[in-house]
Amino acid sequence: MDSQTIIAVVSIITAGLTIAIGSIGPALGEGRAVSSALTSLAQQPDAAATITRTLFVGLAMVESVAIYCFVVSMILLFANPFWSHAIAQSAGS
Amino acid sequence: MDSQTIIAVVSIITAGLTIAIGSIGPALGEGRAVSSALTSLAQQPDAAATITRTLFVGLAMVESVAIYCFVVSMILLFANPFWSHAIAQSAGS
Amino acid sequence: MDSQTIIAVVSIITAGLTIAIGSIGPALGEGRAVSSALTSLAQQPDAAATITRTLFVGLAMVESVAIYCFVVSMILLFANPFWSHAIAQSAGS
Amino acid sequence: MDSQTIIAVVSIITAGLTIAIGSIGPALGEGRAVSSALTSLAQQPDAAATITRTLFVGLAMVESVAIYCFVVSMILLFANPFWSHAIAQSAGS
Amino acid sequence: MDSQTIIAVVSIITAGLTIAIGSIGPALGEGRAVSSALTSLAQQPDAAATITRTLFVGLAMVESVAIYCFVVSMILLFANPFWSHAIAQSAGS
Amino acid sequence: MDSQTIIAVVSIITAGLTIAIGSIGPALGEGRAVSSALTSLAQQPDAAATITRTLFVGLAMVESVAIYCFVVSMILLFANPFWSHAIAQSAGS
Amino acid sequence: MDSQTIIAVVSIITAGLTIAIGSIGPALGEGRAVSSALTSLAQQPDAAATITRTLFVGLAMVESVAIYCFVVSMILLFANPFWSHAIAQSAGS
Amino acid sequence: MDSQTIIAVVSIITAGLTIAIGSIGPALGEGRAVSSALTSLAQQPDAAATITRTLFVGLAMVESVAIYCFVVSMILLFANPFWSHAIAQSAGS
Amino acid sequence: MDSQTIIAVVSIITAGLTIAIGSIGPALGEGRAVSSALTSLAQQPDAAATITRTLFVGLAMVESVAIYCFVVSMILLFANPFWSHAIAQSAGS
Amino acid sequence: MDSQTIIAVVSIITAGLTIAIGSIGPALGEGRAVSSALTSLAQQPDAAATITRTLFVGLAMVESVAIYCFVVSMILLFANPFWSHAIAQSAGS
Amino acid sequence: MDSQTIIAVVSIITAGLTIAIGSIGPALGEGRAVSSALTSLAQQPDAAATITRTLFVGLAMVESVAIYCFVVSMILLFANPFWSHAIAQSAGS
Amino acid sequence: MDSQTIIAVVSIITAGLTIAIGSIGPALGEGRAVSSALTSLAQQPDAAATITRTLFVGLAMVESVAIYCFVVSMILLFANPFWSHAIAQSAGS
Amino acid sequence: MDSQTIIAVVSIITAGLTIAIGSIGPALGEGRAVSSALTSLAQQPDAAATITRTLFVGLAMVESVAIYCFVVSMILLFANPFWSHAIAQSAGS
Amino acid sequence: MDSQTIIAVVSIITAGLTIAIGSIGPALGEGRAVSSALTSLAQQPDAAATITRTLFVGLAMVESVAIYCFVVSMILLFANPFWSHAIAQSAGS
Repeated sequence: MDSQTIIAVVSIITAGLTIAIGSIGPALGEGRAVSSALTSLAQQPDAAATITRTLFVGLAMVESVAIYCFVVSMILLFANPFWSHAIAQSAGS
Repeated sequence: MDSQTIIAVVSIITAGLTIAIGSIGPALGEGRAVSSALTSLAQQPDAAATITRTLFVGLAMVESVAIYCFVVSMILLFANPFWSHAIAQSAGS
Repeated sequence: MDSQTIIAVVSIITAGLTIAIGSIGPALGEGRAVSSALTSLAQQPDAAATITRTLFVGLAMVESVAIYCFVVSMILLFANPFWSHAIAQSAGS
Repeated sequence: MDSQTIIAVVSIITAGLTIAIGSIGPALGEGRAVSSALTSLAQQPDAAATITRTLFVGLAMVESVAIYCFVVSMILLFANPFWSHAIAQSAGS
Repeated sequence: MDSQTIIAVVSIITAGLTIAIGSIGPALGEGRAVSSALTSLAQQPDAAATITRTLFVGLAMVESVAIYCFVVSMILLFANPFWSHAIAQSAGS
Repeated sequence: MDSQTIIAVVSIITAGLTIAIGSIGPALGEGRAVSSALTSLAQQPDAAATITRTLFVGLAMVESVAIYCFVVSMILLFANPFWSHAIAQSAGS
Repeated sequence: MDSQTIIAVVSIITAGLTIAIGSIGPALGEGRAVSSALTSLAQQPDAAATITRTLFVGLAMVESVAIYCFVVSMILLFANPFWSHAIAQSAGS
Repeated sequence: MDSQTIIAVVSIITAGLTIAIGSIGPALGEGRAVSSALTSLAQQPDAAATITRTLFVGLAMVESVAIYCFVVSMILLFANPFWSHAIAQSAGS
Repeated sequence: MDSQTIIAVVSIITAGLTIAIGSIGPALGEGRAVSSALTSLAQQPDAAATITRTLFVGLAMVESVAIYCFVVSMILLFANPFWSHAIAQSAGS
Repeated sequence: MDSQTIIAVVSIITAGLTIAIGSIGPALGEGRAVSSALTSLAQQPDAAATITRTLFVGLAMVESVAIYCFVVSMILLFANPFWSHAIAQSAGS
Repeated sequence: MDSQTIIAVVSIITAGLTIAIGSIGPALGEGRAVSSALTSLAQQPDAAATITRTLFVGLAMVESVAIYCFVVSMILLFANPFWSHAIAQSAGS
Repeated sequence: MDSQTIIAVVSIITAGLTIAIGSIGPALGEGRAVSSALTSLAQQPDAAATITRTLFVGLAMVESVAIYCFVVSMILLFANPFWSHAIAQSAGS
Repeated sequence: MDSQTIIAVVSIITAGLTIAIGSIGPALGEGRAVSSALTSLAQQPDAAATITRTLFVGLAMVESVAIYCFVVSMILLFANPFWSHAIAQSAGS
Repeated sequence: MDSQTIIAVVSIITAGLTIAIGSIGPALGEGRAVSSALTSLAQQPDAAATITRTLFVGLAMVESVAIYCFVVSMILLFANPFWSHAIAQSAGS
């Protein structure tokens, strides 16, 4: 296997696993937060505004962790600096 | 194995595992959220509108994580940049 | 092993594992949602209409994650782009 | 090992593991749903009709996930497209 | 190892593991359902008829998942299409 | 290693693991069911007849899963079709 | 390694692992059942006869699963059909 | 390595692992049973005789599973049939 | 494989795994914190200001752990000192 | 490696692992039993004699499982029959 | 691979895994502490000052563990003594 | 590697792992026992003498399991019979 | 690989893993302790002084375990006796 | 690799892993004990003296297990008998 193929193979595997493993935590965390929000709404409907606002801030924080994983996954697929280097090197040689 | 075959093999495995592993978290998270929504509805039927709206926003957030995995899986199968490069290279050589 | 055999073997394994692993999360999530729906129905029979409607929407969301896995599994078995390419290549050579 | 044997071996292993792993989630999910139904029936016998109907819909949804696994397992054993291709190829050669 | 031996070996291993792994989920699920039925019976003896009927339907659904595994296991031992093919091939050659 | 030895070795390993792994689920499930039965008996001694009858039906269902594993294990040891074939083949050659 | 040694080695390993792994489930299940029996006895001493009888039936069912494992383990050590065949074969040759 | 050494090595490893793994389940199960007995004694001191008797029967049942593992472990160390055969064979040759 | 390719491959894999594994803890921790905040808000709406402020400080602490992982991941992709060294070395040679 | 070294190495590893793995279960089980005893003493100080006596019997039962592991570990280190055989054999040769 | 490359590769992998694995514990621990702080605030708003102060001290203690991991990770990337030695050695030779 | 080095290496690894793995169970078990003792003391300060005495007996039982592991670990490092044999043998040769 | 490189590589990996794995336990333990402290403060604000003092002693005990790991990690990086020996040896040769 | 290097490498790895794995149990156990102490203090401030004293005795017992691991780890780094032997041997040769 030449260098290009190895980097391509490794980038594909890592891109997939990063978003796959990285989705477990945020999905469970968001499910828990939404679950609590609904229980709280049922218990104290008058505080709906505060609860919803806090929920959205919290979901944004948790989602940000999933976004990190997605960003790394997209960088590996479409803006991979090591791949660019390998392409440039093979073009220049 | 030539480069094309390796990239194809790796893309198939990664596409499958990405959506398979990536489905565990969102499915459990959504199940938890729906479960809480139903308990809340039974406890406070008057707040049904607020609960349902919050549930849908929350499910959308959790589902978005599953969508990330599905998108990466589809990209690997049908719009794989490394595969396109390998095809182009073998066509040009 | 020639390229075709490798791709066939990998497609078979991935198709099976994708739906097998991908069934754990949705099945548990749906079981939890249905379980809550039944408890809620017993607690508040008057809200049966709202509970049932919310349950079906939720089940559809969770099932969609299982569908993603099933779709990827079927694509790998019957509409595999890499397999088509390999067949075309061996036919053209 | 020739190509046919490899594909046969892989199909056997995958068919078995698919249904074996794929049975864990649905069985646990259904057990949970049935368990809740029975508790609910004991708590609110008057709502037996609604509870039973919702239970059956829910079980059908969960069972559908197990069916996906069984279908893939049967396809791999009796309607395997890659096996058919290998047979056709060896017959034609 | 010739092709027949490989297929025989793989069939034996897969047949055993399929029913072994496939028995964990249904056994736990049924245990949970039976457990709930007994608790419910103690709590509401008057609803014994409904509870028992629902329990049997539920157990049948869960058992069906174990049956899938047993069927695949038996097919691999006694009606294995790949083994039949290998026998036929070696007889014909 | 000749074919007979391989099949013998694989049959021994699989027979042991099948019943070993297959005993975890049923034992835990039955323990849970018996545990609930005893709690229910203490709570509602008047319903002892119904509880005991339901318990026995449930235990039979769970035990059946363990029986499947035991049957497969015994088949592999004493009525193994692949072993019979290998013996017949070596006797005939 | 000759065939006899391989079969002996595999039989030893499998015999040990079968009873070792197979003891986890029954021991935990029986512990749970006994635990419930004691709690029930403390709660309802008048039902001691029924509770004790049901406990013994339940323990017998759970123990039977452990017995299966022990039987397979003993068969592998002292009545191993494959070992007998290997001995007979080496004696006859 | 000659046959004797292999069988000795395998017997040592298996003897140790059998009792090591086999001690986890019974120890946890007995701990749970004793724990329940103590709680029950504190709750209902008048039923001490029945509770203690039931506890001892239960502990005997759970301990029996640990005994199975110990017996197999001792057999492998001091009455190993395969080792005896190997010794006899090497003495006779 | 030359040194550059090895370092590139290892950097890609590590960058992906670092953020993937590192997202599990923070996401679950934040989900728990948000969940408690919502429950607390529903219980004591008057303390909303204190609760929200404490929540944000806590989320910032937890998020900081995720940031550490993201920073290391970005350093490995875009400011990798070992990669710079390898590039400089290959340019100078 | 000669036979003696192999048996020594395997005995060392097995002796260590046997007592290490075998200590997990008894330690947790005893901790649980002691924990219950203390709770029971606080709840019913008048039954201290019965509770303490039952606790000691129970601890002895659980400890016996740990003793089995320790005995096997000591046998492997200081009274290993296979090691004695190897020493005798090398002395006699 | 020369010595420099090996040390670089190992440093990259270890730096990533150290902070990735090391983030799980602190993130969960901090999430738990924040969660308790919020529950306590809702229960006893008057003690807000003491609770907040204790929370910050506690978070600092937990964060310190994450800092240890981050420090080791940074040392491995930017102040690695073994890397400095290898560079010095290759420069001096 | 000569025999001495192998035995030394194996003794080091086993000594470390034995005490490392063997510390998990006792530490958790003692933590649980101490935890219960403190709760009991708070609930029934008058029984402090009995509780403390029972706690110390229990801790001694649990600690004894850790001592077994420590003893085996020390034996492997400082009184290893196999090491002594190897030293004696190499000195005698 | 020469001896120095091997020792450097192993030291880097072990230093990272030691602090990474060693941070899980203390972080969770401290999180639990802080969490209890906050709950206790909310329940009994008058005992704030005693609770805070006990908390700090407890945190110091738990932190000490993390310090052990950090110390070993630092020793391996900056005061490694085996590395010093290897350097001295290579300098002296 | 010569004998010295192997023993050094193995000592480094084992020293790190011993304290890393060995820190999980004590840290969790101490966290639990401290947590209970704080809850008890809040519930019964009058028994502070007894609770604190019992806590310190308990923490000392749990810490002792961590000390065992630390001692073994230090022995492996700074007073390793096998390393001393290897050094002496290489000096004497």
